[in-house]
Amino acid sequence: MRYELYYWSGIQGRGEFVRLALEEAGADYVDVCRRDGGEDAMMAILRSESVMRPPFAPPFLKAGRQLIGQTANILLFLGARHALAPADAAGRLWAHQLQLTVADLVTEVHDSHHPLAGSMYYEEQKPAARKRAAELVARRLPKFLDYFERVLVGNARPPKYAIGRGLTYVDLSLFQVVSGLRYAYPNAMSRLERRCPALIGLHDRVQARPRIAAYLASERRLPHSEHGIFRHYRELDA
Amino acid sequence: MRYELYYWSGIQGRGEFVRLALEEAGADYVDVCRRDGGEDAMMAILRSESVMRPPFAPPFLKAGRQLIGQTANILLFLGARHALAPADAAGRLWAHQLQLTVADLVTEVHDSHHPLAGSMYYEEQKPAARKRAAELVARRLPKFLDYFERVLVGNARPPKYAIGRGLTYVDLSLFQVVSGLRYAYPNAMSRLERRCPALIGLHDRVQARPRIAAYLASERRLPHSEHGIFRHYRELDA
Repeated sequence: MRYELYYWSGIQGRGEFVRLALEEAGADYVDVCRRDGGEDAMMAILRSESVMRPPFAPPFLKAGRQLIGQTANILLFLGARHALAPADAAGRLWAHQLQLTVADLVTEVHDSHHPLAGSMYYEEQKPAARKRAAELVARRLPKFLDYFERVLVGNARPPKYAIGRGLTYVDLSLFQVVSGLRYAYPNAMSRLERRCPALIGLHDRVQARPRIAAYLASERRLPHSEHGIFRHYRELDA
Repeated sequence: MRYELYYWSGIQGRGEFVRLALEEAGADYVDVCRRDGGEDAMMAILRSESVMRPPFAPPFLKAGRQLIGQTANILLFLGARHALAPADAAGRLWAHQLQLTVADLVTEVHDSHHPLAGSMYYEEQKPAARKRAAELVARRLPKFLDYFERVLVGNARPPKYAIGRGLTYVDLSLFQVVSGLRYAYPNAMSRLERRCPALIGLHDRVQARPRIAAYLASERRLPHSEHGIFRHYRELDA
């Protein structure tokens, strides 16, 4: 079966967490909005009155007749299908719990450049963004990074994966978190990385996996930019 | 088995979504932080180095030897155990997808009074809160409420539940959303409720369910206040 991934064209954004899982799984999928007319097709689904279980927002995944929305929920689905999650119920809940914590971090990173309104440009909310970004760098990122470091170290020594002895979608998402933060907050990360060597090690291992390495080198991997979630604005990363 | 719910004492907050499910299920549970020493016990778990699968933040639920964090994840667990979710896998994912959309709404409501930093008092970020709250009321709440209305109307006519023919934890959470928004943004809601009669009807039906009615009348139901997520500040609800 060929999956259809619906997400805004041109950015990594939340869709990237799904792309990484599809790529690692070697799944057959179409990134719909990168095709002509794809974004129109996505908007048609979002606006349709006849879709039975409509998503609130992208990304969403079409899997046969099922339409699945919410990034972490899509990964919950894909993880079970493609052996990217633990096999037992408790392990799956734990993986999902970690993914929801990644989702919280992603929202906070987004809000660091859009603290007042998603409908306004960054340039219209710069002073507020400066304050929110300062909070992110000083308090929130250390808290999140320390947490994920603890999870990795607590799982195995030497640390290898977030859960058990095999790769899960959580590891792929943690790779993306490090990749995004390095792009958006390079100064802050140059300091913060010292406190999370296991997380950085995980990032490097994921990056070197054959399918992920091939993906990252392909044109399917979009570049980081100031249109996505992880944005680099020098004034926010003093 | 007696569940242990860990959440900040004195507020409804995110814990309330879990409490409502436990109450409707007639589950045996302790609201740990409402007992003497409870909050210390919670902090000990959060800070412990020996907890195998540590939660990032409250609420979390202890179920036997399992420790489950992230509100929506706890509901995913409880829904399956207490027949508060569809029986089929696709239905469960759909319920969870809706719950994650509720979670997004809850975060946006929280950020309407804390747009700059969770570590600062509301009084220190009032001008920013005014802008963010204006965005919430003008754009985001209409979008969320229209969405849930559409889901309810799309599920059955006349609308009764969010999913299928039976009550799920999503319905309980939507009750709490309406209850919280009515408290926090009464002026805005007096206008917005006209666009979501099915959602208001659901709120009323959930409120009248025997176990929920008994819970709401008990001292176990904490009052809304300016310490939780749904806070009423007159200047944000012009």
